[in-house]
Amino acid sequence: MNTPDVLAWRDGHIEALDQTALPHEVRALRIDTVDQLVQAITSLAIRGAPVLGAAGALGVALAVRQGLGEGWDAARLDAEIRRIAGARPTAVNLSREVTAVAARVGEGSQAVEAAALAVLAATAAVSRQISERGAAYLVQACGGGPLRVHTHCNTGSLACLGWGTALGVIRALHAGGALGHVVVDETRPLLQGARLTCWELDQLGIEHRLACDGAAPFLISQGLVDAVVVGADRIAANGDVANKIGTYGLALAARRAGIPFLVAAPESTIDEATPAGGAIPLERRADAEITVPAAPAGTKALNYAFDITPADLVSAIVTERRLIQDS
Amino acid sequence: MNTPDVLAWRDGHIEALDQTALPHEVRALRIDTVDQLVQAITSLAIRGAPVLGAAGALGVALAVRQGLGEGWDAARLDAEIRRIAGARPTAVNLSREVTAVAARVGEGSQAVEAAALAVLAATAAVSRQISERGAAYLVQACGGGPLRVHTHCNTGSLACLGWGTALGVIRALHAGGALGHVVVDETRPLLQGARLTCWELDQLGIEHRLACDGAAPFLISQGLVDAVVVGADRIAANGDVANKIGTYGLALAARRAGIPFLVAAPESTIDEATPAGGAIPLERRADAEITVPAAPAGTKALNYAFDITPADLVSAIVTERRLIQDS
Repeated sequence: MNTPDVLAWRDGHIEALDQTALPHEVRALRIDTVDQLVQAITSLAIRGAPVLGAAGALGVALAVRQGLGEGWDAARLDAEIRRIAGARPTAVNLSREVTAVAARVGEGSQAVEAAALAVLAATAAVSRQISERGAAYLVQACGGGPLRVHTHCNTGSLACLGWGTALGVIRALHAGGALGHVVVDETRPLLQGARLTCWELDQLGIEHRLACDGAAPFLISQGLVDAVVVGADRIAANGDVANKIGTYGLALAARRAGIPFLVAAPESTIDEATPAGGAIPLERRADAEITVPAAPAGTKALNYAFDITPADLVSAIVTERRLIQDS
Repeated sequence: MNTPDVLAWRDGHIEALDQTALPHEVRALRIDTVDQLVQAITSLAIRGAPVLGAAGALGVALAVRQGLGEGWDAARLDAEIRRIAGARPTAVNLSREVTAVAARVGEGSQAVEAAALAVLAATAAVSRQISERGAAYLVQACGGGPLRVHTHCNTGSLACLGWGTALGVIRALHAGGALGHVVVDETRPLLQGARLTCWELDQLGIEHRLACDGAAPFLISQGLVDAVVVGADRIAANGDVANKIGTYGLALAARRAGIPFLVAAPESTIDEATPAGGAIPLERRADAEITVPAAPAGTKALNYAFDITPADLVSAIVTERRLIQDS
């Protein structure tokens, strides 16, 4: 793709592809301060659980540089780093990578930058391993291809660097000649499926169809897809999966249709400190994301950004290290 | 409501509230020809299974008048009437009421108009009976109120005249002091929930929250509602229900959560000639309803307007005459 990097460190600042402008405009965002980074994360210009982890890591390096320039004391630096970690609550990757890199602050800015860049590189490498293991699982579980695969939200290079997680699995199926086509949920309210996944699949020349989120369970029931694959924002110790709102209905439909429901995510998404899905904090976002412009003025909404899929509905979780079944 | 009638016969033409303009503009549409009526139906300016039946009935009267004015022969009149009946394929009410009124054509235009007006009056009366029987069922099934009720698409007076079907049940709960609040799916792609149901509930002063369609199964799983009530466009002889796309996922979620899933519809929606859901024609609409404006240009879609909920997931069907359980 002849486009800006999804996320990069450029001589002391962060450069990111502005995902709020896609697919109609491909533009880079320059981020020099913690304020700008937090704004980019909350507005979803930077998004996707693995990319949030990498952005958080780079954010610690950014905070250290800004702190040196502005003469922050240790308490202020710590507060700014915590602000990055808490910019979005559901994906564990963000706070986890921030915490890991922040532990190096005592070693100086060079060590912090090196640690952050290592997170960035590892994020891309990990997604390739997930992709290939997930594709092999689906081909085996479905008894061979070509497979028609349903996916949700955006889990490609925009969200994960490298090949992606769920969309990486699809890309690996395609690379191996085992993909029929993809059905993509539009993923209301912010339409990451329609805007981002369709754009990535288009760039990759992968055949796809866009569907409304509400239609997905029915399409699955009609035998129009062979498997469902999604990413995850956090996986509890018992295997419950927090992911973009709309995931749970896909899992219910896949179970009733008797087709595989695969979760593709890095090991860093698994949060052993959270015993079950009920303990995962679920971000609620502004009503206006849903109510504007169609609903009457003043309409109130229920805007959960994530849902929880109980472990018993998940066929398998694939990570860069292992395939977890019957969890 | 100080607004135009949803559907009326005015001295030889049809007047309808233009539902494509709501909620931001309340305007009446004047329909003088079969062409204009077919356009109003296919564009969803006139919509909702019971209202489609009544509009079809008035359409026969309109065709007879237009035919007299333009000197149509019997074959032309028959062709124009069949064009109305086929303007949308899924709701059985449209073709059924057209056929019933068309049988009176030999009796002259006065008899046809009287028959069409009788359909209009009966449609409103029927919805009130459905509403009250449905509300009584839900209060009993849930062990008393106040109930938090989830609904989909628009099934109020805009769709049904009178009180409505599913939204009529909600209105009857409200009238009886047994309603907590309503959760409304936005109902992509055309947002009848966000645009029309929120508008009707707002007019009625009924507390409600708007949710994305993909979120609904999760909200149900979290105990945020006590029951789900939807309308129907056609009910097969075995109890399978065709309704607005997105219904099936609600039924799956309600079953897993152990809460009632009620279908509220007039007897005329039950099609004994269709043995099971698989035989119901499901309208597929233009890709652009989904792809524009968010997806990249050229994106293809899967735009089924309706889905089928198998009878085993339906707790009860309520009509103006009876409560059908364990169908």
